[in-house]
Amino acid sequence: MAFTTLQEMELPAAFDAHVHLRDGDMAQLVAPTIRQGGVNQVYVMPNLVPPITTVEQCLEYRARLRAIEPSVDYLMSLYLHESLTPDTIRAARKAGVTGVKSYPAGVTTNSSSGVLDYALFYPIFAAMEEEDMVLNLHGEVPSTPSSAPLSSSSSSQPAITILNAEPAFLPTLTDLHARFPRLRIILEHCSTGAAIAAVRACGPSVAGTITAHHLSLVIDDWAGDPFCFCKPVAKTPEDRDALLRAVVHSSGRFFLGTDSAPHDSGKKRGEDKIAAGVFTQPYAVGLVLDALETGVERGVVAEADVKKEVLEGFLGGWGRKFYGVEDTRGEKILLRKGEEEIVGLLSKAGLGVEVVPFRRRERTWKVTWK
Amino acid sequence: MAFTTLQEMELPAAFDAHVHLRDGDMAQLVAPTIRQGGVNQVYVMPNLVPPITTVEQCLEYRARLRAIEPSVDYLMSLYLHESLTPDTIRAARKAGVTGVKSYPAGVTTNSSSGVLDYALFYPIFAAMEEEDMVLNLHGEVPSTPSSAPLSSSSSSQPAITILNAEPAFLPTLTDLHARFPRLRIILEHCSTGAAIAAVRACGPSVAGTITAHHLSLVIDDWAGDPFCFCKPVAKTPEDRDALLRAVVHSSGRFFLGTDSAPHDSGKKRGEDKIAAGVFTQPYAVGLVLDALETGVERGVVAEADVKKEVLEGFLGGWGRKFYGVEDTRGEKILLRKGEEEIVGLLSKAGLGVEVVPFRRRERTWKVTWK
Repeated sequence: MAFTTLQEMELPAAFDAHVHLRDGDMAQLVAPTIRQGGVNQVYVMPNLVPPITTVEQCLEYRARLRAIEPSVDYLMSLYLHESLTPDTIRAARKAGVTGVKSYPAGVTTNSSSGVLDYALFYPIFAAMEEEDMVLNLHGEVPSTPSSAPLSSSSSSQPAITILNAEPAFLPTLTDLHARFPRLRIILEHCSTGAAIAAVRACGPSVAGTITAHHLSLVIDDWAGDPFCFCKPVAKTPEDRDALLRAVVHSSGRFFLGTDSAPHDSGKKRGEDKIAAGVFTQPYAVGLVLDALETGVERGVVAEADVKKEVLEGFLGGWGRKFYGVEDTRGEKILLRKGEEEIVGLLSKAGLGVEVVPFRRRERTWKVTWK
Repeated sequence: MAFTTLQEMELPAAFDAHVHLRDGDMAQLVAPTIRQGGVNQVYVMPNLVPPITTVEQCLEYRARLRAIEPSVDYLMSLYLHESLTPDTIRAARKAGVTGVKSYPAGVTTNSSSGVLDYALFYPIFAAMEEEDMVLNLHGEVPSTPSSAPLSSSSSSQPAITILNAEPAFLPTLTDLHARFPRLRIILEHCSTGAAIAAVRACGPSVAGTITAHHLSLVIDDWAGDPFCFCKPVAKTPEDRDALLRAVVHSSGRFFLGTDSAPHDSGKKRGEDKIAAGVFTQPYAVGLVLDALETGVERGVVAEADVKKEVLEGFLGGWGRKFYGVEDTRGEKILLRKGEEEIVGLLSKAGLGVEVVPFRRRERTWKVTWK
């Protein structure tokens, strides 16, 4: 298969290991676009307002999502929070909840209830390891406050900004893996070469997700463009290229988690502070294929390395394997290159929100369900 | 003088060595705010549309500015462009034009006519050196295009992004200074510790300007905030702290050039791509004092180093000395701490533009003219 010359290909339906479906009107708008993107199984993030911290909330949320779009399999998660106990973890496992998502306090959308000190949660992690639940890490440390005295941003240790927040988190990943070696951990939305290396240095119980947009964006793209701004921010061209290489040389350690993060267009354009998040859900698989094609054209990845098993693995197989799930529907998708035009604005009559997608009005692969 | 305890101080009227006054309605809105900021003399940037490339355009532009606000002294500049000749430089000098501004092609607002190859302009620089005119450098190299093949962003040389665009330019500064050692050069809006070091490593014919906003902003501040986004972008806390130290240890090598860059609020909020520029003109002196106070509180600069001669020098004396001008008006300003509230939006009846200032609705020093 010469990947860049293919005009059409058939793949198993994809698994998106990191989605934000929100609730209410936004969920009504977004959940129906999952299958449009070539995906029939998703891992759902719990950062609603308030966050999902009980099994009951979690099951109710899944019921609401199923009511909107029943043809998708929703793997559910709890929000790591001090109200959680080892009993919650055991009950969650019994009820079919898949994992727990950890947000460092204050680094991204709806993370104000997040983690300040991981040691507090060791009993939770021990219970998760015991119950074989997945820990999903938002792998950034909070930025040094502007008002911090020089001693806390001194010459010995550089201050933390959104640029080095992920590399600064990696020792925590390594430490958690050493303490809980059987705990399945995912470093979500890897955005740096350093993150890729840190995941690889861990054992097979640790994996990383990579988004579609981090495979094409760099810092220049989001500076001045609200619709390319997300957390973690896209970094340097060298980092982006490390992510592209991680896709084709994954060996199952990295797989797709789009972190598709819808915000009403007013939160992206009209407000003073711009909400962080790139919305890719309706075009998830096509955007990954486009980024890989650019990677081949630029000489970052070899065409021969973009094998069918790489595409099948990154887009579904490897994520499903790590999560221990299958596509019980056994569905296939047919992709046709360049035949889909990304809409300028996603909206629906009667809903009070509308979302601007990534790469709006450009062309990508069209998904047809077989 | 214990700087941070002062509630009131008297200073000579300030000189702002880098202003964007635009033209038409925007100039009508902005030029009258120069004195509000404590400034009575400015160096005016030539990046209008089309850019100012002839002596006649330059003098006409100054006449329009004088008609709007006659109580300010406008030092004028030409836009470095291939249509310039050594004769233009000699005629410009005779007509009272002060300098020439160099924009690298495509890096900031209205720079599409900018420089691709500095060697083309050596005859111009030679004439400027002869005529003792000032060369103002926007010190960034263009970013590596996203589509560039890997060889041009290879492991030997990192790709250029808005983060390393200024450090990557510094060899050009050093080279131009070596070729034209008597040519007065200003590295405008220094934004990195590397830029400060490069200016210091040159002889006394080279100086640097520092903006008010780069003395307080870091990358986290402009990520997600259109009104803190400018080119060059604010960098790390270590870079910001190097700028604060450069102010108090300037020895005349660094002085205020606000790079106050007004854009209609629609270009900051409503459009898809956000215009680069932070608007500080009406509060120029107060914003510098506030940043220095925070610098003292954070332990970055010693209170004893914020001497009256430092404030007088950075805010006016050193810039005037480098430019070889004086405040012929001999005006004084009285500053009162915290007595000015920055407006939420600068607008004026009958004008088709409105501008959101930096740190809107916060308090700063109030300027009164004596």
